[in-house]
Amino acid sequence: MNFLALRRQTLTRNLKAAGADAALVTASVNVTYLTGFTGDSSYLVLTPKAAVLVTDPRYEAQVLEECPDVGRDGAVDLHVRPHNRTTPEAAAEVLTKAGARAVAVEASRLTVAELEGLRGLAPKAEWVPVKGLVEALRAVKDPSEVEHIRAAVKVAERGFRMFAATLREADTEKDMADALDGWLRRAGSRGSPFPPIVAVGDRGARPHAVPSPDRPLGEGSKLLVDWGAETAGGYKADITRTLKSPFLPTPSRRNKFERAGYELEEVYAVVLAAQDAALATIRAGVPAREVDAAARQVIDGSKFAGCFTHGLGHGIGLEVHEAPRVRENSDDVLEAGMVITVEPGIYIPGEDGGPGWGGVRIEDDVLVTRDGHTRLTTLSRDLSVAGGGS
Amino acid sequence: MNFLALRRQTLTRNLKAAGADAALVTASVNVTYLTGFTGDSSYLVLTPKAAVLVTDPRYEAQVLEECPDVGRDGAVDLHVRPHNRTTPEAAAEVLTKAGARAVAVEASRLTVAELEGLRGLAPKAEWVPVKGLVEALRAVKDPSEVEHIRAAVKVAERGFRMFAATLREADTEKDMADALDGWLRRAGSRGSPFPPIVAVGDRGARPHAVPSPDRPLGEGSKLLVDWGAETAGGYKADITRTLKSPFLPTPSRRNKFERAGYELEEVYAVVLAAQDAALATIRAGVPAREVDAAARQVIDGSKFAGCFTHGLGHGIGLEVHEAPRVRENSDDVLEAGMVITVEPGIYIPGEDGGPGWGGVRIEDDVLVTRDGHTRLTTLSRDLSVAGGGS
Repeated sequence: MNFLALRRQTLTRNLKAAGADAALVTASVNVTYLTGFTGDSSYLVLTPKAAVLVTDPRYEAQVLEECPDVGRDGAVDLHVRPHNRTTPEAAAEVLTKAGARAVAVEASRLTVAELEGLRGLAPKAEWVPVKGLVEALRAVKDPSEVEHIRAAVKVAERGFRMFAATLREADTEKDMADALDGWLRRAGSRGSPFPPIVAVGDRGARPHAVPSPDRPLGEGSKLLVDWGAETAGGYKADITRTLKSPFLPTPSRRNKFERAGYELEEVYAVVLAAQDAALATIRAGVPAREVDAAARQVIDGSKFAGCFTHGLGHGIGLEVHEAPRVRENSDDVLEAGMVITVEPGIYIPGEDGGPGWGGVRIEDDVLVTRDGHTRLTTLSRDLSVAGGGS
Repeated sequence: MNFLALRRQTLTRNLKAAGADAALVTASVNVTYLTGFTGDSSYLVLTPKAAVLVTDPRYEAQVLEECPDVGRDGAVDLHVRPHNRTTPEAAAEVLTKAGARAVAVEASRLTVAELEGLRGLAPKAEWVPVKGLVEALRAVKDPSEVEHIRAAVKVAERGFRMFAATLREADTEKDMADALDGWLRRAGSRGSPFPPIVAVGDRGARPHAVPSPDRPLGEGSKLLVDWGAETAGGYKADITRTLKSPFLPTPSRRNKFERAGYELEEVYAVVLAAQDAALATIRAGVPAREVDAAARQVIDGSKFAGCFTHGLGHGIGLEVHEAPRVRENSDDVLEAGMVITVEPGIYIPGEDGGPGWGGVRIEDDVLVTRDGHTRLTTLSRDLSVAGGGS
């Protein structure tokens, strides 16, 4: 099965409904989805008769390596622009030559200035901005994509196990984030698709904490880690675990909020129950907001009401955040083949911006099926998964 | 000197010329430039009377840490939106309350769909797309920015020295790219602002080569490395060095193109001469295209005519690529305070996409001054800078 060709066919078929006879795909990630090419600065032109990848001399060899359909009869033609012409200029020429009249463009990707530029380059064409032109297709994964994501999850888990096995009490958040990135690469990742979040103790109360060079692991009783991995094809994993530190601080080194606060086990149990409640609702046909509601109900029905301050999850694939949206105000409905994160959390910050108790988040990557779900993450959800050489 | 306040003042002063009485800055990097906040999903609203940073609860603590002007009288007000409202909704409210009528927006950043959304949220406002609203200011660095870039260069160089000192013959391009990233972090970088290019032997002919897990250092006679670093404030360095491999391959392991081709020293000398020619032209008032021409003339006047297949350089700062453009078709003119890369190269690919001789590129970061330039890079341009434990 040539999934790349299938994707282009579906897109071409959708053009009529958008009132267009051609499409210009400019977002790199969407060009990747439709051709396999993982570089940038290249556009895909689609007309009912032809698909043309417009790239430049820097990328020619990489295109030939990565794109199985380039060069085949009837599949994707390659147009290598000279380095003194711009990609929009070259793409406009290809569209004009193909006689395109109404060209769908990506409303959520193309900037106001880029659209203005295209209007100047092909004044006779009608440009039709369409939201989610390619993203709508990408929300539902085909089997090859699910396998890529599964591979990314495996790499992310392997890297995390190396990380957890090699922790030292004196490692700062920054040390740990750097080390995690290295282990992920060693496990086969291209690097981190987003900077890992590594938060010690009360700093876990910030859902988007930047790793600090001043906070060592030994100064908190818990560790929140949110990290990803990326396979060669560009697919991502996104996982969070909250661990009981293998190096419990002596009472004198605990900050007063941790000492005075809740037991980690108590908070963790509520987040785990919230995740289980959400997972139990997942299946094709369910509105995404109901999955969020299931988790939120558990947390808001506990003594931690109001402490779950973000949405439950998001689609994942070629991007770390993509369709569908899994949150309170989402209008998306789950379909079989969607891959989403399920990541409830409880955050207990301090008052007036001071240090608080901290936070707990558990995040897994999950495939929606007709009758339920398949968890792609296989890491234990045990609080002490770290082990860690104490 | 409060440079952040100065930048906001300059922008506010420029609004009139654009026919606007307010501005909505949506690009994260431009919000960073104007406030110091390095997170995302936050907008800056500027009116003649007030500056308001619109963010969400995840980022409140980080904003208070990073932005010296937030909370001060008369500087930047903080608006933390509730998590069930979007940033555009919150920003539109702030603008409407401030009585803004004509709002400048970033034409090269805002997508077509985002502009459409804003129109719906504040139908009475006039939205004025302006190209380079903030980027035009960013092209000329103030003294604090030059110091940040200098610090990033220092980190990039320190990381590279560690890398070069620890090379092994068996390391593949992927191993080396991963190791370089780790050393850069150890040297103080936040990570790599772009994936390092590490190309062995003939693979250097691809200006944007993706590091291969199958090509060890010992199988080429030269190594091209293009890497960056990023300091805490978000400023970047971007350097390239081409090295003679400390592990020269035995003749039987050299590929035939390397064996049959030019001497590395010969190609290198032409690129070095091209860089020197370009550097000699740099000073305030010179059209950027003349700097490109000076380097290109040296290469095109040699036996390697036509082998310099990209522009000479680009501005660098909060982004790896920013204004000015230093290339053949640039209309930019150098000003004192601009920081640019100067990176001539010679690329000799194989025929029909096969392996070729390879490539040489030398890239330094340079501050434009009234009378000439200051090279911020201090690494030797010696071919054998690697050393490397042979």
